[in-house]
Amino acid sequence: MTVEPIRWRGDRLELLDQRLLPETLSYVTCRSAEEVAQAIRDMVVRGAPAIGCAAAFGVVLSKGGFEVLAKSRPTAVNLFWALERMGRAKDLEAEAKAIYEEDIAANRALGEFGAELIPNRARIMTHCNTGALATAGHGTALGIVRSSKGKKVTVIACETRPYLQGARLTAWECMQEGIPCTLITDSMAGHLMSRGEVDVVVVGADRIAANGDVANKIGTYALAVLAQRHGVPFYVAAPLSTFDPAITDGSQIPIEERPGDEVTGYRKTRWAPKGVQVRNPAFDVTPAELVTGIICEKGVVLRPDRDGIRKLLAS
Amino acid sequence: MTVEPIRWRGDRLELLDQRLLPETLSYVTCRSAEEVAQAIRDMVVRGAPAIGCAAAFGVVLSKGGFEVLAKSRPTAVNLFWALERMGRAKDLEAEAKAIYEEDIAANRALGEFGAELIPNRARIMTHCNTGALATAGHGTALGIVRSSKGKKVTVIACETRPYLQGARLTAWECMQEGIPCTLITDSMAGHLMSRGEVDVVVVGADRIAANGDVANKIGTYALAVLAQRHGVPFYVAAPLSTFDPAITDGSQIPIEERPGDEVTGYRKTRWAPKGVQVRNPAFDVTPAELVTGIICEKGVVLRPDRDGIRKLLAS
Repeated sequence: MTVEPIRWRGDRLELLDQRLLPETLSYVTCRSAEEVAQAIRDMVVRGAPAIGCAAAFGVVLSKGGFEVLAKSRPTAVNLFWALERMGRAKDLEAEAKAIYEEDIAANRALGEFGAELIPNRARIMTHCNTGALATAGHGTALGIVRSSKGKKVTVIACETRPYLQGARLTAWECMQEGIPCTLITDSMAGHLMSRGEVDVVVVGADRIAANGDVANKIGTYALAVLAQRHGVPFYVAAPLSTFDPAITDGSQIPIEERPGDEVTGYRKTRWAPKGVQVRNPAFDVTPAELVTGIICEKGVVLRPDRDGIRKLLAS
Repeated sequence: MTVEPIRWRGDRLELLDQRLLPETLSYVTCRSAEEVAQAIRDMVVRGAPAIGCAAAFGVVLSKGGFEVLAKSRPTAVNLFWALERMGRAKDLEAEAKAIYEEDIAANRALGEFGAELIPNRARIMTHCNTGALATAGHGTALGIVRSSKGKKVTVIACETRPYLQGARLTAWECMQEGIPCTLITDSMAGHLMSRGEVDVVVVGADRIAANGDVANKIGTYALAVLAQRHGVPFYVAAPLSTFDPAITDGSQIPIEERPGDEVTGYRKTRWAPKGVQVRNPAFDVTPAELVTGIICEKGVVLRPDRDGIRKLLAS
């Protein structure tokens, strides 16, 4: 089965409602930029590249709506990148389609580059969801897993609290694809690394600063620190639309704080006591020094730093 | 309100059903060692010192039952320590009561020693539940927080997936005591440390090896690694009943693997796809080199190692 998170229908955008996965496959229909912005805010669609694509089609629907779309979520730069491209475009629909098609092509290309770095039978740990659901198709980090299928790799999916993208989406995509996948809680990653049960970590990104610092789903930073301690390679997979050369380093990346009820329970189930105070930063920043390599559609930047990123973007 | 996790009634043991907290306060009544073993296995009662106390009363109820109790859970050594004491005792009820009373006294003593290490207005990160619920009373790591109340400390409680002892039990105990508490997912700990929002980490223990390696709730190891990176002191609080000098180092501590349905959802709510493969190690091992100090009822062992532990146990 091919997962289609984003379907453009000419007069409307259909978004696979990722809040209901894996139990229910249903689509939300958006007919304006406002409705797309709402869907992004509510996480009907999530994942940095997918948000960028959805926003582009949102502009097509309203022949504008830049402002409401730009306010929908703050961290993933792909959103602002797509809006900027749309702002410069003459044929809005053609540009949105190009953004969508180019994202799939970028993922396939970076998947090939990444697969070269993955050993045979590697046990690949990943975080959040970076698959077809997070992009126009194929996926970034999970796209590398897809491109490595011939190597008989297996996936260790961190469940990714609070929103459980790993448990709900990554485990589901792996099962759909027939890729062996073991689900763990985020807190188990260090234990598995300490027992030698992880060969490589591959994650996605929401924004990469000019110096190679990486903002990604909350919990990524802990994986990077643990991977360094255990000598496990730590790769970041992202298309060029995720790079933000205007941001000097990770400290300048805005980190979204989401509603507390994501932490105190799941859907209608509550487990924390009523009235408890909560923090819910949705992303964290992994400093470049912890990143073994950044994989994009142009190739791999090993030991990323300001120079390496500049050369990549200029190439 | 005083939380009483374990009530001895002369002919029966009443255990606060911690599976139902914080929504429901109700007790499970045990009239035999078998019933106590079942309650330990099912996590009606949990927390290393509380398990030891419950097992001791289990022996009283059946005038034996050592074998079934010893098989209930493998990692916390307090269980085996209590059974050994009961095996040597003449008056079983008096011994069980002594184990219970001594645990409260030990917690109060270590609470005082620990409080000396806690700065004014410290933001104390903790994991799992180590409060009154995990012990005969007062608590170990959370006992130190209780003993530090005068210093206007605040707690950052990691929710502690998969069983959510932090969200369900620690946050609840803090609210009952009027101690300001912020709940986070386990994956957020590194982000908060990187932003300078954590002054000290204090956790409990399920078994401490002769060299100072510490087995504790899964996720503890990641906190220790992150704390070291950020120069945040990392303390372990445990009574002497948690020390296992027969175990040379942490690699020999048996790590319990619990049922997968703790990871795929919560109570009757499922979120992972059906049939997904799961790992569920309930504990991990933190090497002594990452531990700033171990706090017990005899005092504090800073930078614990084989010598320091030996001197402590011989003192």
